[in-house]
Amino acid sequence: MRALVYEENKVRLTKDYPEPKASAGEALIRVILAGICRTDLEISRGYMDFKGVLGHEFVGIVEESEDRALMGKRVVGEINAPCGICLYCQRGLGNHCPQRKVLGILGLDGCLADYCILPTNNLHLVPDSVPDEAAVFTEPLAAALQILEQVHIKPTDSCVVIGDGKLGLLVAQVVSLTGCELLVMGHHQDKLDILNRRGIQTKAADDRSHAEPGNKGKKADVVIDCTGKPEGLSQAISLLKPGGKLILKSTFAPQDGSLLFNPAMLVIDEINLIGSRCGPFAPALRLLERELIETSALISAIHPLDEAEAAFAEAGRRGILKVLVNSSQRTQGTQGTEGTQRTQRR
Amino acid sequence: MRALVYEENKVRLTKDYPEPKASAGEALIRVILAGICRTDLEISRGYMDFKGVLGHEFVGIVEESEDRALMGKRVVGEINAPCGICLYCQRGLGNHCPQRKVLGILGLDGCLADYCILPTNNLHLVPDSVPDEAAVFTEPLAAALQILEQVHIKPTDSCVVIGDGKLGLLVAQVVSLTGCELLVMGHHQDKLDILNRRGIQTKAADDRSHAEPGNKGKKADVVIDCTGKPEGLSQAISLLKPGGKLILKSTFAPQDGSLLFNPAMLVIDEINLIGSRCGPFAPALRLLERELIETSALISAIHPLDEAEAAFAEAGRRGILKVLVNSSQRTQGTQGTEGTQRTQRR
Repeated sequence: MRALVYEENKVRLTKDYPEPKASAGEALIRVILAGICRTDLEISRGYMDFKGVLGHEFVGIVEESEDRALMGKRVVGEINAPCGICLYCQRGLGNHCPQRKVLGILGLDGCLADYCILPTNNLHLVPDSVPDEAAVFTEPLAAALQILEQVHIKPTDSCVVIGDGKLGLLVAQVVSLTGCELLVMGHHQDKLDILNRRGIQTKAADDRSHAEPGNKGKKADVVIDCTGKPEGLSQAISLLKPGGKLILKSTFAPQDGSLLFNPAMLVIDEINLIGSRCGPFAPALRLLERELIETSALISAIHPLDEAEAAFAEAGRRGILKVLVNSSQRTQGTQGTEGTQRTQRR
Repeated sequence: MRALVYEENKVRLTKDYPEPKASAGEALIRVILAGICRTDLEISRGYMDFKGVLGHEFVGIVEESEDRALMGKRVVGEINAPCGICLYCQRGLGNHCPQRKVLGILGLDGCLADYCILPTNNLHLVPDSVPDEAAVFTEPLAAALQILEQVHIKPTDSCVVIGDGKLGLLVAQVVSLTGCELLVMGHHQDKLDILNRRGIQTKAADDRSHAEPGNKGKKADVVIDCTGKPEGLSQAISLLKPGGKLILKSTFAPQDGSLLFNPAMLVIDEINLIGSRCGPFAPALRLLERELIETSALISAIHPLDEAEAAFAEAGRRGILKVLVNSSQRTQGTQGTEGTQRTQRR
């Protein structure tokens, strides 16, 4: 099968990657659409020491499963495959199982391919009304929702989201539904405008008045760092009121992931720092079904899988939002007949 | 001025009620629209021993205020007028100040009239894009949001709202924005349909399977009683899982407010019972501005103030949702010239 593989410090498309086989309790999924995430780019810089097929955001069709109810159904899949028997798993912390595999990130080939494998328990049926182009956002939207799972953001809280990338735009939308006083700070006016059109307040990140979210000289109760950069941490602290909550969504590759940081500033201001990673799929699908989250404006381009190398390069360029890869279409001149549509620009 | 007054166990419209005078720190507000709330009906049955002008939900125009920025502006107003100096007020608990007055409920004439008075600090400017018919819902919407202020409802929580009255429909909409697994139970299919059209799951309250919100035999993490009836409490407990949170939004007049209740059931199931009353206006206005809350379908009728007695009687009838009273219009034959529109049916 076709697959976008990272190995020997290189990302390349191969046409003859061995098709995966589903073991007991697993499902074989034919990928329709897959998304390229910042984490995939970090992996190509050495993050997680991963080797294999990239990609962990997808929507696809179940082709093999012991669960008849899933056969032929359109699904999205949680990316953590826990052992299911350790103490973490017994306590419902499967996402933190020390033996876990993670789709396209840790010990498990990913979904930037024709097929992928996941435990049947990881799969969620996609409601008919949710198009593929929205369903493929379920995983990052779930990651955004994890913030609300971990932290009680009150309607009267003031909250700042730093970063207007793919994740920042999803986090901002999810947090805005709490009714809180929200300000989103970023470097790209065109991305901030996506939020402005939905009535969400934004500010250019280099605006020096950024320490005053409510225009009243006050700092925020909650700051969420979605910059994807080591510097995001200290910027977030500068915006936070004493006793506030700082939520970190950024992960980095080792070589550019370190920063000079004095943790005493967390002690002095009694800041509650909360790391936040993967989140719940069911509520993400509920919000998508109710059309409460804008996803189409977040798509920069859709490439056929045959052009996945170019897609990956494009996803790494500054200012680009979500690049999707379509496995169900083939470019003209390749062996497939299912579709001939080429790269779509948004 | 005209005012709908409760005194001597009777609700009646008077045309010569003394116009209120604003003291220092207070504003005189010309009422545009006022809403009739279940609490007003309870007051007419003896709740709170209140005597005077009824009504606490309104949108109006500031006609007198020391704050020039408010003059001539369209506002809504928080209904609790605290003393501002006691220990409660010092700790930000003004809504619970023992010396507080409450608009149309406790020691302060209400807004079902041509004019009302509130402390300037209680007023919030209404964004231009929010029409009067939506702005008048700010107070009950804030009361709905108070639930999210008090309780962390997680995206993965299962939640049941009991009651499909005015408040229940607002509570359901607010809670649905968390992404949680929500089921609303009520007796009126036409009201539940308002929620169904917004993608919110509902069930008839007499459906015997109601103890299984997720269709998996499981009970709810959070149950919110908006029935406005004493029986709501025990029904709510029957739907709640052990260790769950039960939120009570119902208040009753003394004569029909008692029920046989054994609090040991709260102890055995370790239930967290949380009373919930007034809430924050600013987030309510943010949600209305972003059109995230349906209010127009919640309006059963709009009557001119001259027909407020009939409006009040109508609001008490079974199955009726919000009845609004328009103070800026006068019926034909009365002295006003500003408008001649009669009762509007929805």
